[in-house]
Amino acid sequence: MLPSFDSIRPIKWQDDSLILLDQRLLPLVEQDFVCTTLPEVIQAIREMVVRGAPAIGITAAFGVVLAARERYQQHRDQWQQFVVEDLVQLSLARPTAVNLEWAITEMKSLFSRLNTGDPVPVLLEHAQSILQQDIDANYKMGKLGADLLETSGGSVLTHCNTGSLATGGFGTALGVIRTAFMQNKISKVYADETRPWLQGSRLTAWELVKDKIPVSLIADSAAAHLMKQGDISWVIVGSDRIAANGDVANKIGTYSAAIAARYHQVKFMVVAPTTTIDMSLKSGDEIPIESRSREELLSFNQQRFAAQGSDAWNPVFDVTPATLIDAIVTECGVVHRPNTEKMAKLMSNKP
Amino acid sequence: MLPSFDSIRPIKWQDDSLILLDQRLLPLVEQDFVCTTLPEVIQAIREMVVRGAPAIGITAAFGVVLAARERYQQHRDQWQQFVVEDLVQLSLARPTAVNLEWAITEMKSLFSRLNTGDPVPVLLEHAQSILQQDIDANYKMGKLGADLLETSGGSVLTHCNTGSLATGGFGTALGVIRTAFMQNKISKVYADETRPWLQGSRLTAWELVKDKIPVSLIADSAAAHLMKQGDISWVIVGSDRIAANGDVANKIGTYSAAIAARYHQVKFMVVAPTTTIDMSLKSGDEIPIESRSREELLSFNQQRFAAQGSDAWNPVFDVTPATLIDAIVTECGVVHRPNTEKMAKLMSNKP
Repeated sequence: MLPSFDSIRPIKWQDDSLILLDQRLLPLVEQDFVCTTLPEVIQAIREMVVRGAPAIGITAAFGVVLAARERYQQHRDQWQQFVVEDLVQLSLARPTAVNLEWAITEMKSLFSRLNTGDPVPVLLEHAQSILQQDIDANYKMGKLGADLLETSGGSVLTHCNTGSLATGGFGTALGVIRTAFMQNKISKVYADETRPWLQGSRLTAWELVKDKIPVSLIADSAAAHLMKQGDISWVIVGSDRIAANGDVANKIGTYSAAIAARYHQVKFMVVAPTTTIDMSLKSGDEIPIESRSREELLSFNQQRFAAQGSDAWNPVFDVTPATLIDAIVTECGVVHRPNTEKMAKLMSNKP
Repeated sequence: MLPSFDSIRPIKWQDDSLILLDQRLLPLVEQDFVCTTLPEVIQAIREMVVRGAPAIGITAAFGVVLAARERYQQHRDQWQQFVVEDLVQLSLARPTAVNLEWAITEMKSLFSRLNTGDPVPVLLEHAQSILQQDIDANYKMGKLGADLLETSGGSVLTHCNTGSLATGGFGTALGVIRTAFMQNKISKVYADETRPWLQGSRLTAWELVKDKIPVSLIADSAAAHLMKQGDISWVIVGSDRIAANGDVANKIGTYSAAIAARYHQVKFMVVAPTTTIDMSLKSGDEIPIESRSREELLSFNQQRFAAQGSDAWNPVFDVTPATLIDAIVTECGVVHRPNTEKMAKLMSNKP
């Protein structure tokens, strides 16, 4: 039984299948999407049945289990080799979230050490532990992040969805918000609706309403006007990839909110597990930014609303430079005013 | 016959009626909304059949004609007094655009000087001249604004709709863009989609496609990311009310774009006729900001997409401080780096 402030688990292993809560249909319909093969997992990630960097990583780990099951049945001796080939498509499913690559590497490194016998129990156990470790990390980050907030009972602003739906459960930025709400440090959450996919309106609001945390949606472009009212003490967001210098890739609009926050002297917090940190990239300039279909911007529910003949540019992530960030909160500690040196120190202290 | 780069006239007097192009239905349906009474005009303004500060002013002027026609038929001697009462509701139709108040004052001042006889021909002539003066002003501003742009053939960003649909014709910010495009100073326009009402996707894109000016829509929150690419030289917007110190009220999101522009050293231009300037207000803090129904944010075409139980905050304008503005372009001249002194000088030089 989950506590009332943490009531959603979007990724489950059940009856030998991976069960995903289909986030394309929320909040109107709560329906599962069942994966029994790797191609179904790839489809789920690509089409955003599941989204959010940590949730993509966890889903990928279970995808490896499904691939190994199939290939082991087909080729007892050479299944590893076939799975390695299968995983190329998985790693390409979405480019920005590094957690996808991290999870694949993690699972590969485990199965390359396996010799004989059915690999599924061992791989499944590891995928399950990746899921559980993510939830544990979220609780740790929730506490560390909430500790940074004043005891005022004020409001915070968040962008996109960083909650249970974006993770194994509880959430990154939304985990901090949940924790701070339980501690009476937050009385209300403003959530950007988050165009074009409306993760804020559809997912974050759904989670917060479910957990009885007061939420007010705003147009993304109203964030600066809201900050000017003086009601917001922190902007709290997640991340899809953090470079070695502390630059943060996250949902399009994060950068805009960070600039507005600095202009209004509102503090800016990024909450992400260390699996989101990519020490191989010097700066955010090297992070691949996914562009998605222009139809996401021009239509709603297959209904075209934009003028025929107009083009659209739909990058779905942007990069916020470390200089605009007050704190990066990870399960291994908080980095204040991040830079290359401090990020390296955090990662070298990682257990 | 209108030129190909200026092919739209949204407000017409025809067959003793005011004919408005219904902007709620664009771009999918081009349908007129016919007003023969003042209450229909008030409804049209309130429900955004017509929107955009100059267009609201012009529409109101014709509304006065319709009110006078009705009251003169009913009360030959006291029609003025009845019309004055009727106009209270008109002036309340939308609070932020000062052009509404300006047009009402203008028409009132004319009819208070009329003594006997049918007032309609005189009032109609004046409303027609307000319409024509607006178009003339737009052409003047188009030239003055385009003169500020480099001769590079680059891209600009605009927000909301400031084109023919927001004015008598040609447009304010979009008039500058049309002019600069004809002069080969602009090769492409980025247009914010402009949540929640999607004026950018629905109206600006429709106008630009019609006039064969290349347009790419972006999520409002992608503007900062776009500026970082270095492709944008100017942000060009309109205004609903400008205070005596040069602070500018405009569509929600303008302030956010102005902050991002300054951060990236992209220049920021506001284009508005002097009828938009309200010298009675010392600063933008005094400008009334309209909030509209939360359903504008939570639903699309009566289809609810946001989570049930979530609240929304829907201010539809914000105020950009004069300090973030590089130029205010009016039909009477350009004010660079506006402040109280420069604005007063502009208004005192007004013919």
